[in-house]
Amino acid sequence: MTKVHNYSAGPCILPQEVLEKAAAAVQNFNGLNLSILEVSHRGKDFVEAMENARSLVKELLGVPEGYQVLFLQGGASLGFLTAAYNFFPQGGKAAYINTGTWAKNAIKEAKRFGNVDVIASSEDKNFSYIPKGYGIPSDASYLHYTSNNTIYGTQFKKTPISRIPLICDMSSDIFSKEINVADFDLIYAGAQKNLGPAGATLYIVKEKMLGKTGNDIPTMLDLSTHIAKDSMFNTPPVYSIYVSMLTLEWLKKNGGVSWIEKINQQKADLLYSEIDRNGLFRGVTEKEDRSNMNATFVLNDESHKETFDKMWNAANISGIKGHRSVGGYRASMYNALPLESVQVLVDVMKELERTKG
Amino acid sequence: MTKVHNYSAGPCILPQEVLEKAAAAVQNFNGLNLSILEVSHRGKDFVEAMENARSLVKELLGVPEGYQVLFLQGGASLGFLTAAYNFFPQGGKAAYINTGTWAKNAIKEAKRFGNVDVIASSEDKNFSYIPKGYGIPSDASYLHYTSNNTIYGTQFKKTPISRIPLICDMSSDIFSKEINVADFDLIYAGAQKNLGPAGATLYIVKEKMLGKTGNDIPTMLDLSTHIAKDSMFNTPPVYSIYVSMLTLEWLKKNGGVSWIEKINQQKADLLYSEIDRNGLFRGVTEKEDRSNMNATFVLNDESHKETFDKMWNAANISGIKGHRSVGGYRASMYNALPLESVQVLVDVMKELERTKG
Repeated sequence: MTKVHNYSAGPCILPQEVLEKAAAAVQNFNGLNLSILEVSHRGKDFVEAMENARSLVKELLGVPEGYQVLFLQGGASLGFLTAAYNFFPQGGKAAYINTGTWAKNAIKEAKRFGNVDVIASSEDKNFSYIPKGYGIPSDASYLHYTSNNTIYGTQFKKTPISRIPLICDMSSDIFSKEINVADFDLIYAGAQKNLGPAGATLYIVKEKMLGKTGNDIPTMLDLSTHIAKDSMFNTPPVYSIYVSMLTLEWLKKNGGVSWIEKINQQKADLLYSEIDRNGLFRGVTEKEDRSNMNATFVLNDESHKETFDKMWNAANISGIKGHRSVGGYRASMYNALPLESVQVLVDVMKELERTKG
Repeated sequence: MTKVHNYSAGPCILPQEVLEKAAAAVQNFNGLNLSILEVSHRGKDFVEAMENARSLVKELLGVPEGYQVLFLQGGASLGFLTAAYNFFPQGGKAAYINTGTWAKNAIKEAKRFGNVDVIASSEDKNFSYIPKGYGIPSDASYLHYTSNNTIYGTQFKKTPISRIPLICDMSSDIFSKEINVADFDLIYAGAQKNLGPAGATLYIVKEKMLGKTGNDIPTMLDLSTHIAKDSMFNTPPVYSIYVSMLTLEWLKKNGGVSWIEKINQQKADLLYSEIDRNGLFRGVTEKEDRSNMNATFVLNDESHKETFDKMWNAANISGIKGHRSVGGYRASMYNALPLESVQVLVDVMKELERTKG
């Protein structure tokens, strides 16, 4: 099979060995002579997979006592609503940082509950930087931010220091670098970047923070519902959770989050160095806020577009077309993307320079 | 591979040829040299699969003009809330039929919106029958019912005749028999019975009925959000939808819903005949309300349990233990369960009779 260098922004590349195990389980899960797609979620084998997935999340991220790990559905988009229902008292106040499309969508859902104080925004420069130097109102129920902005290619390099509860949508950089879970009261993340296939959504929540809003929370949006039933209140997205478990096993076996963080840094350094060195290209974001997951860049001279596009296509690179909100190129370098794929892209950029520079 | 007779109540058996294609796509989707799990949902190949899945739903169920078909997330459990948000004006009234656990869960969510008139219930006899002879209040915004009750083994044999809008949770019998979609204003169904793997939820909605409640609907629970974006408002559960598409292709190729309805009737006739003939067993539900999907039955003499359990286990039958709310046995005979698997179970029941009768 020809190797494709898969830079897709999500759903995205998963480790080859995970895909092989994932395919095998569709044929025969755990030697049951049944497909993982046709077994009961309440059977011993899948219950073990679910427990294993939740344990691996705890182990790999060092989740402290008092936190619950859940695998639910709906993506971060439903998470925006779920977060507010569980943390935003009706008529109260919450603080949000606006770093792009997903942050705005989170703000929109939060506004149903009360006063949303957007304490910082980078909208003035098309979200090309991470705001700094903002104050956090002490009377807000929580501060919400998006740790990595897939579309724009920006990433918080430090967790905001907050005296109020902290909620983070980590959809596109969870498991890519070490975090201190104790800094957060709620983390949520769609699986389809560093975790597994689309369809599962991870929640990590400090349990004692729940049940304090006085909100009458719909059953499926109440995190307590799912805690009480070990993520099995209703039929979970079985396969997405199973493959997430396989990915977490792969991560653990290879050295965990600290291991992948170093590789992700190498990949990012390699690509951003070339973007900065090569006179045909320039980065889109502030250098200090560059995402290690999604590198956004443009050609200085658009007339080279056709040649460059042909060249990376010929090199079996896929998925680097930029999002329509930004244009140009976006190279998503999630955990499973090997360093060699970044080298192939860098080589193509160098080759373009030789041809056109 | 030893053949397992998979009677799981859901997630449940899928056609072998679907599983083979589903496994192949995890290795290499559409010859892209990429797994279906790692491609963008906005890429041409998956967009085509999504469109194909939606078209097949329309074709196989004869969905009339004016209806929209959506593949979303959250299962019927989130559907209970979504249905009410989109059809139940705050402070208004809606009519529900209570035929068991899932109907009760639907009622619970609806009560957030206004007066829920439970116009009929079979709770007096542990949901062992389908209520009849109820009146439908003309001032209710809609009538909601559950077409098949997986846990208890009852099924509506006729669609209720209703002058008010009709909403149905068809999770466990959609695509098992012909229906007249024009009778309904909203149908919703978790995929994990006759459609595909857990993680996708099908909605079929009469579009002109939307937007009339005056409710301020959260973005993800507003069916109009998803109609406007062709089920791609956020990242869809890619794999569950893809495998659902494969299952629908299998159904179409073999003769469609009318074809499978006849086979489902044969399977149900074969098993219920044996339950009625064999003196060691009895059915749990009213005969006229027996589900063709889930047959519930018990041993007349519990002392035969150990022998019977050993016998069906030895025959490679799996998943016929009854739900804790009913006890005894439940044989789920979804579309992909072959007639031969029912014959194997019937043979075991006859063999028990020869041994113990």
